[in-house]
Amino acid sequence: MSITIMTQDLMALHISQNAEAMQRFVEEHPLADCAEAFTQLLDNQSLSSKEAGQLLLLLSLEKQAALFGYFSLRWQEKLAEQLDAQEVAQLTELMPHDERADLLTQLEPEFQSEVLDQMDSEERLDIERLVSYPEDCVGAVMTSDFATLEAHHTVEEAIRQLRSIARERETIYLAYVVDAQQRLQGTVSLRDLVVSEPSATVAEIMTQVLIFVRVDEAQNVAAQAISKYDLLALPVLDHQNRMVGIVTYDDAMDVAEEEADRHIHKSAAVDFAGNLKEASVGLMYRKRVFWLVLLVFGNLFSGAGIAYFEDTIQAYVALVFFLPLLIGSSGNAGAQSATLMVRAIATGEVIGKDWAKMLAKELFIAGLLGITMAMAVSLLGLWRGGPEIALVVALTMQIVVVVGSVIGMSLPFVLSKLKFDPASASAPLVTTIADAVGVIIYFTVATSILDFPVAA
Amino acid sequence: MSITIMTQDLMALHISQNAEAMQRFVEEHPLADCAEAFTQLLDNQSLSSKEAGQLLLLLSLEKQAALFGYFSLRWQEKLAEQLDAQEVAQLTELMPHDERADLLTQLEPEFQSEVLDQMDSEERLDIERLVSYPEDCVGAVMTSDFATLEAHHTVEEAIRQLRSIARERETIYLAYVVDAQQRLQGTVSLRDLVVSEPSATVAEIMTQVLIFVRVDEAQNVAAQAISKYDLLALPVLDHQNRMVGIVTYDDAMDVAEEEADRHIHKSAAVDFAGNLKEASVGLMYRKRVFWLVLLVFGNLFSGAGIAYFEDTIQAYVALVFFLPLLIGSSGNAGAQSATLMVRAIATGEVIGKDWAKMLAKELFIAGLLGITMAMAVSLLGLWRGGPEIALVVALTMQIVVVVGSVIGMSLPFVLSKLKFDPASASAPLVTTIADAVGVIIYFTVATSILDFPVAA
Repeated sequence: MSITIMTQDLMALHISQNAEAMQRFVEEHPLADCAEAFTQLLDNQSLSSKEAGQLLLLLSLEKQAALFGYFSLRWQEKLAEQLDAQEVAQLTELMPHDERADLLTQLEPEFQSEVLDQMDSEERLDIERLVSYPEDCVGAVMTSDFATLEAHHTVEEAIRQLRSIARERETIYLAYVVDAQQRLQGTVSLRDLVVSEPSATVAEIMTQVLIFVRVDEAQNVAAQAISKYDLLALPVLDHQNRMVGIVTYDDAMDVAEEEADRHIHKSAAVDFAGNLKEASVGLMYRKRVFWLVLLVFGNLFSGAGIAYFEDTIQAYVALVFFLPLLIGSSGNAGAQSATLMVRAIATGEVIGKDWAKMLAKELFIAGLLGITMAMAVSLLGLWRGGPEIALVVALTMQIVVVVGSVIGMSLPFVLSKLKFDPASASAPLVTTIADAVGVIIYFTVATSILDFPVAA
Repeated sequence: MSITIMTQDLMALHISQNAEAMQRFVEEHPLADCAEAFTQLLDNQSLSSKEAGQLLLLLSLEKQAALFGYFSLRWQEKLAEQLDAQEVAQLTELMPHDERADLLTQLEPEFQSEVLDQMDSEERLDIERLVSYPEDCVGAVMTSDFATLEAHHTVEEAIRQLRSIARERETIYLAYVVDAQQRLQGTVSLRDLVVSEPSATVAEIMTQVLIFVRVDEAQNVAAQAISKYDLLALPVLDHQNRMVGIVTYDDAMDVAEEEADRHIHKSAAVDFAGNLKEASVGLMYRKRVFWLVLLVFGNLFSGAGIAYFEDTIQAYVALVFFLPLLIGSSGNAGAQSATLMVRAIATGEVIGKDWAKMLAKELFIAGLLGITMAMAVSLLGLWRGGPEIALVVALTMQIVVVVGSVIGMSLPFVLSKLKFDPASASAPLVTTIADAVGVIIYFTVATSILDFPVAA
């Protein structure tokens, strides 16, 4: 399973151009690994896309079509450019409908229409419909090659029917029973068919459809439903209740993974979903600079707080020693509770009306955390500045940990209430807010407890 | 699909105790939703676990077994306690093998052995084997109810065989061809069987097994393989190459989700994977306090840095104004790159040897980010403290953004090299380290540029 060895084999095949050996190569290795080996050779320019295209053409059309979907869209496009319109049309006819739609959207408009001209009108219409859906909706991830049956079929006829279309359909394990208007009436699994009497009708054995999605819903909704209800595939309906596609479990896994990526990156104030190694410097700069600059303004509040208390600082420079510690702890506690809360909201585990209950619990937990931290720093305060400083530091720690935690846990709810993505309550944002609040609390406590020469 | 309406229906069924209506209820709603409605009623104590248990007993044993797996383990345990050992044994015999093993581990040891005594020895051995695997390994998530075939079977015999075991097996869509020693020889999909000649043998149509996992590997490995290779199920082998189980795509989705949870939480220095609403105050306190206290020590370095430069601060109190801004920006830039890198390492997109290449890119991006930020703050420095302060602040900003980013991107690699989980390079940890380094850079730059009365 070593990709490095596979790349060496591929280079040997490139030299020999032995079609039989090439066919055997893709049969003996998982397609995902074959594509990875190809990609490595393309990335480090051991193979040009022209040479890779020639190697692929040695394969049977079925294998070409199956392998193609495992390349990144960028390489799919480059490889397709090496073929003529007719070759691409032949290839795409055998590809899963969702993958071929993705590929065709990548092509130059002119080449794309040449390819479409080579296809028969039914396939063309299918592609044009699939590419018309906006990027993040279910329509853009679903596939239209699902198996359908009619209610009056017998089990025997149904099995024969599924057998005849097995090669062209993404899955035949679930078949959808539709009426003449393509309205969904039920589902039948191949498992049900196999265990039923051959003379029974589909109507008798079909299961009522309980879970479906609309074509314009968010992809995430489909992925969550597939995961929650343990589905193999989820039917997609339009607003006339016509069956227009299915989302399969493997596409749902990809959506969930991308969603997790996006979520994790947002937690650090970078809204990026994609391949980090392939992303350009300019793209990453743009994705990161916005939040960094925005947070500068947040930090100015901390600065302003410090400026306001300049006299206090001048009198007790020792206070500055504890500044990073106190505002850091406030920010850390806040980042913890924000992250816990954002994830719980994203997975649907916690909803808006749980806020009050979660707040009570958070206050309690943060209170305990604050006491622990206050005890730790009071010793430090005693050592660095005497009992008065110790009191100031311990009291501040107790307050800022609680306040930071409450800010961290409430912000996601507030954002979600204001129709923003709760994931924008990133650790840096919460830390920045908690810092500013922490500065003010710290010096307010200090000013009210300590004696000042200026006040004297 | 509203859970609230379902809870009302359930309360009505609780009053009527109508077995037929109860059976219809679970047929008309997705099982996951039924379990959710039950859980809500149990959570807010509208139903006691005894009453819920009575309602469940109205169902056919098949439905009970199917529904049971959708409850959280905590409620499964409470509900099982309402039944006697024989009832639990009957129920678990119909449950998927992985789910029933999970349930039995939850029971009191005494009750558990009573239940096991009620089962026949084969089932008992199966459970005892499944529960013996450590928590995070493949063995603990796999199921042992997979379908097997023998190579000499004809397609017709194979279909008949699968039909006869369809009801007891988690999936019959993939069957595993094994020899007399249970060693895996190949797989056959139901799709292949359905499209092949009835007289062909299994040996002729089976596919070579290219992807499998060992029973003691991490669950995450299995989940990633299923996602990467688009598998329906992944065979699990022991070290004698005997087939001991399968991991199905739906379990892989659960593993991936838990993994993402854990990952996201680690990014905020809380190592927690579970239900936030159900987690006790004590548990959350323990999960959070460790890192918070640890980070206190990190922040002490910042404090020590400040103490070292106390004279500088005394002379230019205005410098403190920029302190949160500068160290905050360093930490934010670091948190961004750490998060991007940790995720890229976790998904296998970036590996150890990419470090140098990623570093070069990061230096370039961070350089650009630093220039932008430096320009922004230099104006501020001019306004608050004149040209000299502006120079100090801009120069520091440029340096700390680059240094923070490099720390953020390198730390995950270092941790991974030292065999720690790279995800421990959480935003709070990176922020704390970047803070300390930022303090030192700031005052070093300030001390070398500004004139000091003490030096005069």
